[in-house]
Amino acid sequence: MPKSIVVIGGGTGAFTVLSGLKNRNFDLSAILTMADDGGSSGVLREEFGILPPGDIRRALLALSSSPTNTLARLFNYRFKQGTGLKGHSFGNLLITALEEITGNFTKAIEEAGRILGAKGKIIPVTLENTRLFARLENGILIVGETNIDIPKHDGRLKIKEVFLNPPVKANPQALEAFKKADIIIMGPGDLYTSLAPTLLVKGVSEAIKKSKAKKVYFCNIMTKFGETTGFKAIDFLNVLESYLGKNTIDYFVVNIEKPKKQDLLRYAKEKKEFVVFQKKDFPGYQIIPVEKISRPLGRDPRFLNQIKDLGEIGKKLTPAKRTIVILAKLLRRGPLLRHDLNKLAEVVEKIAA
Amino acid sequence: MPKSIVVIGGGTGAFTVLSGLKNRNFDLSAILTMADDGGSSGVLREEFGILPPGDIRRALLALSSSPTNTLARLFNYRFKQGTGLKGHSFGNLLITALEEITGNFTKAIEEAGRILGAKGKIIPVTLENTRLFARLENGILIVGETNIDIPKHDGRLKIKEVFLNPPVKANPQALEAFKKADIIIMGPGDLYTSLAPTLLVKGVSEAIKKSKAKKVYFCNIMTKFGETTGFKAIDFLNVLESYLGKNTIDYFVVNIEKPKKQDLLRYAKEKKEFVVFQKKDFPGYQIIPVEKISRPLGRDPRFLNQIKDLGEIGKKLTPAKRTIVILAKLLRRGPLLRHDLNKLAEVVEKIAA
Repeated sequence: MPKSIVVIGGGTGAFTVLSGLKNRNFDLSAILTMADDGGSSGVLREEFGILPPGDIRRALLALSSSPTNTLARLFNYRFKQGTGLKGHSFGNLLITALEEITGNFTKAIEEAGRILGAKGKIIPVTLENTRLFARLENGILIVGETNIDIPKHDGRLKIKEVFLNPPVKANPQALEAFKKADIIIMGPGDLYTSLAPTLLVKGVSEAIKKSKAKKVYFCNIMTKFGETTGFKAIDFLNVLESYLGKNTIDYFVVNIEKPKKQDLLRYAKEKKEFVVFQKKDFPGYQIIPVEKISRPLGRDPRFLNQIKDLGEIGKKLTPAKRTIVILAKLLRRGPLLRHDLNKLAEVVEKIAA
Repeated sequence: MPKSIVVIGGGTGAFTVLSGLKNRNFDLSAILTMADDGGSSGVLREEFGILPPGDIRRALLALSSSPTNTLARLFNYRFKQGTGLKGHSFGNLLITALEEITGNFTKAIEEAGRILGAKGKIIPVTLENTRLFARLENGILIVGETNIDIPKHDGRLKIKEVFLNPPVKANPQALEAFKKADIIIMGPGDLYTSLAPTLLVKGVSEAIKKSKAKKVYFCNIMTKFGETTGFKAIDFLNVLESYLGKNTIDYFVVNIEKPKKQDLLRYAKEKKEFVVFQKKDFPGYQIIPVEKISRPLGRDPRFLNQIKDLGEIGKKLTPAKRTIVILAKLLRRGPLLRHDLNKLAEVVEKIAA
């Protein structure tokens, strides 16, 4: 039986993971953030009172059995003109119309999945309406996912916390999926605007923690202005652990392939920087290059030695209880500094083995 | 080999004929008016510069292999809210998006047909942009199909003539279809706003006349305020012959089943009346009840007698050259005074036999 993989988050991160995994022998589910309130999704939320379809559309497209066929191209098409149509994604309109026809967001997603031949299940993390808020280090409150994602404020200000208002409870389908999962994948993707709003839904963190699944986090390759400016690899882990608790993540996968200078310079204009992994930030962690994953992880003798080095504290940590850091070259070819979907999927396959 | 049937027109008339014929053993094409300029189609015409998708959407829906499935229901869905979305038909948006993706209206229709599993071919009568004008009996010019269809003027005024401006030439696909047709079906449907704008496209009337196909016209059951007020069956034939020439129509099919009084009263409120067939209006015509169609039409001995009765003029008319009037009970059950799609299809099957 294929292993059950649950992917959490949204946006291009979830798109990459799902695209990479869909043609491999896994039983896939995507549990998606419902905090998007910008662009086409934002307008449809406001005018139709539906949940935001944008992240669902992208995930469905990723799971589509033939992403180059007309239906998938339609699904991804965005109107370039037309009063009230301009900027709307056709896929979002399709999900909206399906919700109106079926009278039910869950059914609408199922039907859209059927139409596109989606190789996996799409689950909104919540079926309740909520919005994402962020409190900055200077105390200012930012309202709405879009305003955090595309900052109108000084993006150098650090985010102190994000929260959902009103608090909403998890979609039972999502909790069920966590329970049955063999692997739960978080990231890559926007830490505060894709991953956090998923983890912040009531019941989600607990379900992840309780799940016997291996929990994997793919750290971002680049920082994002207004969200993770100045972040190093350890900062991503720390934020994640603030939601999930210490050592919930089993595998922290970080890219160690440095991009080309010219690409970094281009990203620097958008105030985005390469996420640096420094061994010194991970004392006592088992750190292994991906190529070395050949035996059951967590039992590497070198790791046991490292734990000894930690003295009394180390002795209390069993390998199984400690996040393992996996170093991998994950960069995609080309100018976009993103994860290569196949390299990413290969890491997952190694972990799943 | 199944006989090739070409249906001309648009609107609910074409929808009825196509729906009735699609599950019978025919090779179907629909050649559709491109004069629609109202509602969702009108907005999309104006804002995207595309040809009007409305009649195409309805015909595709009629030909859809499973009209109750989600895609067909989506195709027929009309947004009830949303700035700029309200009133738009989802099917129209789909055709518009396909036109933008494929860069070509013809390809867009083909793709839409594939998506819906259409059992037949949809052909826009022209690929050029034009509008329908009507001159009323008082000399006033009405601009646009919608303004003729839903009169803002005094709808009791008769239409003197309708024309397309600018004049446009026929889609070569349409001319080809006429050439290959075994049967060409015109009507039922709006005489001046569906049928005329199709026949008025340059090359269409000539192609129909030249075609060796049997030409069938289904006369409307009810008159339409602003278009055919006061029309009897013969008036429909006369207007049609003004475009096509005398005796081009081989079979003029007219409903002789009188609707219920209560239904007629309801229609009377919309100033619509039952279209009366009077034998005296058709002197010298072969008039036969549909049940009697059992031998090759046009050779009914009674008809030959009638021709004799006409004296010298009658002798010059050969049965094959004269429009045959077929009387049939075509009323659909229920309050809507429209053609029953199955009864209509049965008449076509008799003529095709």
